[in-house]
Amino acid sequence: MSQHRFSGVLAPVITPYNADLSPDAARLGNHCSWLVSQGAGLAVFGTNSEANSLSIDEKSSLLEALIEAGIDTDKLMPGTGCCALSDSITLTKKAVDLGCAGVLMLPPFYYKGVSDQGLFDFYANVIEAVADDKLHIYLYHIPPISQIPLSLNLIEQLAAKYPDTIVGIKDSSGDWNQTQAFHDLQIENFAVFCGSESFLLQNMVAGGAGCISATANVNPHAIFDLYYHWNEAGSAKKQSALNSIREIFQSFPMIPALKAATAIYGDDAAWMRVRPPLTGLTDKQHATLALKLKKAGFEMPDL
Amino acid sequence: MSQHRFSGVLAPVITPYNADLSPDAARLGNHCSWLVSQGAGLAVFGTNSEANSLSIDEKSSLLEALIEAGIDTDKLMPGTGCCALSDSITLTKKAVDLGCAGVLMLPPFYYKGVSDQGLFDFYANVIEAVADDKLHIYLYHIPPISQIPLSLNLIEQLAAKYPDTIVGIKDSSGDWNQTQAFHDLQIENFAVFCGSESFLLQNMVAGGAGCISATANVNPHAIFDLYYHWNEAGSAKKQSALNSIREIFQSFPMIPALKAATAIYGDDAAWMRVRPPLTGLTDKQHATLALKLKKAGFEMPDL
Repeated sequence: MSQHRFSGVLAPVITPYNADLSPDAARLGNHCSWLVSQGAGLAVFGTNSEANSLSIDEKSSLLEALIEAGIDTDKLMPGTGCCALSDSITLTKKAVDLGCAGVLMLPPFYYKGVSDQGLFDFYANVIEAVADDKLHIYLYHIPPISQIPLSLNLIEQLAAKYPDTIVGIKDSSGDWNQTQAFHDLQIENFAVFCGSESFLLQNMVAGGAGCISATANVNPHAIFDLYYHWNEAGSAKKQSALNSIREIFQSFPMIPALKAATAIYGDDAAWMRVRPPLTGLTDKQHATLALKLKKAGFEMPDL
Repeated sequence: MSQHRFSGVLAPVITPYNADLSPDAARLGNHCSWLVSQGAGLAVFGTNSEANSLSIDEKSSLLEALIEAGIDTDKLMPGTGCCALSDSITLTKKAVDLGCAGVLMLPPFYYKGVSDQGLFDFYANVIEAVADDKLHIYLYHIPPISQIPLSLNLIEQLAAKYPDTIVGIKDSSGDWNQTQAFHDLQIENFAVFCGSESFLLQNMVAGGAGCISATANVNPHAIFDLYYHWNEAGSAKKQSALNSIREIFQSFPMIPALKAATAIYGDDAAWMRVRPPLTGLTDKQHATLALKLKKAGFEMPDL
């Protein structure tokens, strides 16, 4: 049984596409290797991975390819929560069978206004169907996009029923009071990740486990540096520097901006492709992003 | 090439489950046969079908089973719009290959605030990938749940580019002004269905094609009767009677209430099962529903 628990900085890894918009496993593997070299873990199939624009089969194949390419399964926390219970079971089981140390699980997000009982049943059904004590679930709280908040009561009930399986949460509410409320639950061995490095210092002070953040795709080393040295002099300045870079990316649609930066700094235009319903940056946005990053002295070392 | 175009009353057919929550193809086939006998078409895999709680494989298998059981493909308008472009292509192609006369297509609904261009690209990619002139798409507009409105501009552009493929819309906005705006586009051979029989008379007066409504699962004959005789004396009274029955169902969570009524009137408790994140009616709700329907003189003839 894997005893690995996640902490630190994870990237919801952006997903590259071939010209026909099929997923590009080789480029994804290279980007994952680079992220690991920079200190980051791999929350593949997150929101910023366009995970919900990929089929279950595509995600399963990519996961197999990453592991075949030598990516350490202790670094892998794939997103496996889908709208359909059957899909969530299939993909979660696949992740566990392949040895992934954890999974990040969205609630089902089509039906709105569902009850805590319905969400509990959903997670419980996945856990009982996978039936493997190597399954470690990090709940994924992102109500601005999923439109499905996870209540404190629900989280407490899940963690009480499955203490060795429900081991943490990623909070992408964008509201520090919400993240604090997850800390205040004081669930034992429960890792609280913030969903943006803007809250990283605050989260570490509160006893959090780190962050899982979009911009860790492009700025992993600097984010990891704050994670590692948060309790030392200069941490506020490091936080401020991270915020400045994040603000540049946030002034564009985030996913195409992350891909554009990867294309620019890796000199590889193939990274610019996104799957509909997303669209790439316009030429003007692309040029403005490049300029802003250059002015800020931004780098992606060893990319 | 199938020249069939849909009109009339369609049910977003509720999906029965076995005790292990796998889909029950035989019960679904029986319910579809009954609906057809009552005058309804079959919008299987709609919102009220818990479509987004089913995997692509489950939906493909159910579709095959229905056709093997003798369901007329001219009655079938399966929902095939998924979050993932690849899933939408797979399922739409399957529906066309099996001979379904139309498909009802949700926009991708995970990513919010996406552009008209991104949604256009999504539908265009599906149409180009399926590449079959037998494909007839009815757009599915249900912003209260999908959170993705389809703009008038987007619809005009799609219909202009693909006039033989984009052949109609189901409007479940719940706002008659919105449905009227779709009529006002005056797109040639474009069928406007309202998403609730509450608007059926209004929609027929406006030149609409009919309705695709949750309660057509349980009250198809009466809804069909108004559709067929909307231009005759007594139609307002018929509309009012339909509204009374709908209001009973709307006073409960709709999907479990439809299933409970089917269980009650068909004397078949298996129909009460729902998949998480939905939950069934409580015992008290179940009893209240039964009582209200009885008092209203509601029947499901020949079920």
